[in-house]
Amino acid sequence: MRVGDKQFRTVWMEGDTVRIIDQRKLPFEFVLEELTTVDEVAVAIKDMHVRGAGCIGATAGYGMALAVEEAIASTNIDETLNRAADRLISTRPTAANLSWAVGRILNLLNKKRSTGNVANHDELLALARQEAERIADEDVDACEQIGEHGVKLIEEIASTKPRGEAVNILTHCNAGWLAFVDHGSATAPIYAAHHAGVPLHIWVDETRPRNQGARLTAWELANEGVPHTVIVDNAGGHLMQQGLVDLVITGTDRTTYTGDVANKIGTYLKALAAKDNSIPFYVALPASTFDWKTRDGVGEIPIEKRGGEEVSHIEGRLASGELAEIDVLNPGSSAANHAFDVTPARLVTGLITERGICAASEEEIGGLFPELAGRG
Amino acid sequence: MRVGDKQFRTVWMEGDTVRIIDQRKLPFEFVLEELTTVDEVAVAIKDMHVRGAGCIGATAGYGMALAVEEAIASTNIDETLNRAADRLISTRPTAANLSWAVGRILNLLNKKRSTGNVANHDELLALARQEAERIADEDVDACEQIGEHGVKLIEEIASTKPRGEAVNILTHCNAGWLAFVDHGSATAPIYAAHHAGVPLHIWVDETRPRNQGARLTAWELANEGVPHTVIVDNAGGHLMQQGLVDLVITGTDRTTYTGDVANKIGTYLKALAAKDNSIPFYVALPASTFDWKTRDGVGEIPIEKRGGEEVSHIEGRLASGELAEIDVLNPGSSAANHAFDVTPARLVTGLITERGICAASEEEIGGLFPELAGRG
Repeated sequence: MRVGDKQFRTVWMEGDTVRIIDQRKLPFEFVLEELTTVDEVAVAIKDMHVRGAGCIGATAGYGMALAVEEAIASTNIDETLNRAADRLISTRPTAANLSWAVGRILNLLNKKRSTGNVANHDELLALARQEAERIADEDVDACEQIGEHGVKLIEEIASTKPRGEAVNILTHCNAGWLAFVDHGSATAPIYAAHHAGVPLHIWVDETRPRNQGARLTAWELANEGVPHTVIVDNAGGHLMQQGLVDLVITGTDRTTYTGDVANKIGTYLKALAAKDNSIPFYVALPASTFDWKTRDGVGEIPIEKRGGEEVSHIEGRLASGELAEIDVLNPGSSAANHAFDVTPARLVTGLITERGICAASEEEIGGLFPELAGRG
Repeated sequence: MRVGDKQFRTVWMEGDTVRIIDQRKLPFEFVLEELTTVDEVAVAIKDMHVRGAGCIGATAGYGMALAVEEAIASTNIDETLNRAADRLISTRPTAANLSWAVGRILNLLNKKRSTGNVANHDELLALARQEAERIADEDVDACEQIGEHGVKLIEEIASTKPRGEAVNILTHCNAGWLAFVDHGSATAPIYAAHHAGVPLHIWVDETRPRNQGARLTAWELANEGVPHTVIVDNAGGHLMQQGLVDLVITGTDRTTYTGDVANKIGTYLKALAAKDNSIPFYVALPASTFDWKTRDGVGEIPIEKRGGEEVSHIEGRLASGELAEIDVLNPGSSAANHAFDVTPARLVTGLITERGICAASEEEIGGLFPELAGRG
């Protein structure tokens, strides 16, 4: 998408180097970073230089291309590859796209190597890079298709309003293009509607503790010229009660094949409020975010606990323009930091996927993705 | 309550001066402030040097004592008094205690002045001060009684747990002693249980945008030695889903005679999550916070909108120890700031008042306060 007057993806490969937008300094500074080892890729994912379902999947895919280089140079290809795969998958426990992307490349390599005519190293390397590229391209395509399906929901709401009146959409965290390779999941229908001339206004949850809404989603929407207002995470329920929200769209880091949605902490609270006020609550995701093995999201999806310092310390700009980090907690008090929660399927109006919109149910999800369902 | 090894109230009068704890710099600095005019009192309430239902009620009461001085010195006692009353009431539109306290003193003065033998100025002044003092003392007593009733709920939960296992209580914003004259409403049962030796652990919602939880409630609990953990406002639903919350207690800025509860923005979301997870959700309040005129809380209670800069800017401590304010928003994006929301009575398990615990219903509220009900 657009950054100033240039088009960017969040992650891509040039020669032997993985290049990413380092999202930690956004929106205050736009920094590109080069990653040349599996270890650097793992750190970039774990420490959230990149974050978001599709983006970390694609980044891990490129990381596996780097892993093949390291494996070829090592004494034990299998061990090096498997260690790299484990390292990449373990960086973020809740995200489904990580193990999906890493597993996809690992399986392909293993298949190739197990065939009669053992591939040479150049072939393996080319194979891994090609597959990583394919994962990134598919992510872009899937998000575009999510946009094409989701825009219909927005147009439908617009058609019930007086001409020119904005459709109010609330979103949580950043499931924008920064969370994918391009377009985003939750934002894809928003960008599609905006480009189609549908008047929109987006309520952007700031999304504590890391403020991905106030920092990233707001930055994206501003770059694309989409009208928006940042609110604290506490505000969404009140806005829904007062009729100021027409539609909620969020992303997800992992959705069970039964429709339970793991997403940024606080999503569940918004889903409850949407239900209580009869407001449609949609979750946008590509197939790569489905977890085909897990039935009970609330009981079984591992929820990442991050450091309390993400709650106690906030970064922003001083009046001087300089970036600074401040401690906002009572000295001597400590903080807990659960990074995700699970919204039960019963609270989800529908899932917007690259193949269309379906109910958050085993039956309808399986109906859209019959070749993937039952893979658990 | 305790600040270091001294006991404090949040507001008191010494001679002609109203003294308050200026809560804006807490927990980083403990500052006392002197208010000598109605205007200074109004600014202190509006700009939140003092905040919280009981505390601003008592402060406004003392403000009316200052108003009598100003009225006596003016050419028109009635006009000066009424202007002062309007000025004080209009500082915070959602709070019920403000108009209650101001009205109580104004009515008393008017009654005295309308009797045959017109009171002299000294008498009026003494009357106003005495009544302001009474309002503050009654607030303290009411909170203590709320503690005595509410502690039973906590002890009951403790009795169902293995000996020594903490009762986990979640609270939102600050309905602690800083929000009243002493003891607090939501915290009164907590302090009572802690002093009775019941093991407790409090989940403290940070309560964006002004972080009264992370700053004030955490500071209070630390001063009293109550174990607690600060969480982002997004986290409560997940903690409830995972069985980590036994009880929710919040305060309220206005509760209708039908049981609808206006409180700090985000309270409604926690009430929804408590309901969804069958966790008791109690609201603690003295009778002075009831609104005996309003039936429909969601539709009728005015919700204060404050400046967006409270959302975009956060104050805290730099690593150097210095206080600083940072801007956390995407430059060019703007923020909205709705300060309260309304939790419908159907989501409230019960109200903890100075006369006991009752359901959040017109019948039971009226049953506890028959002399006040129907005053609308």
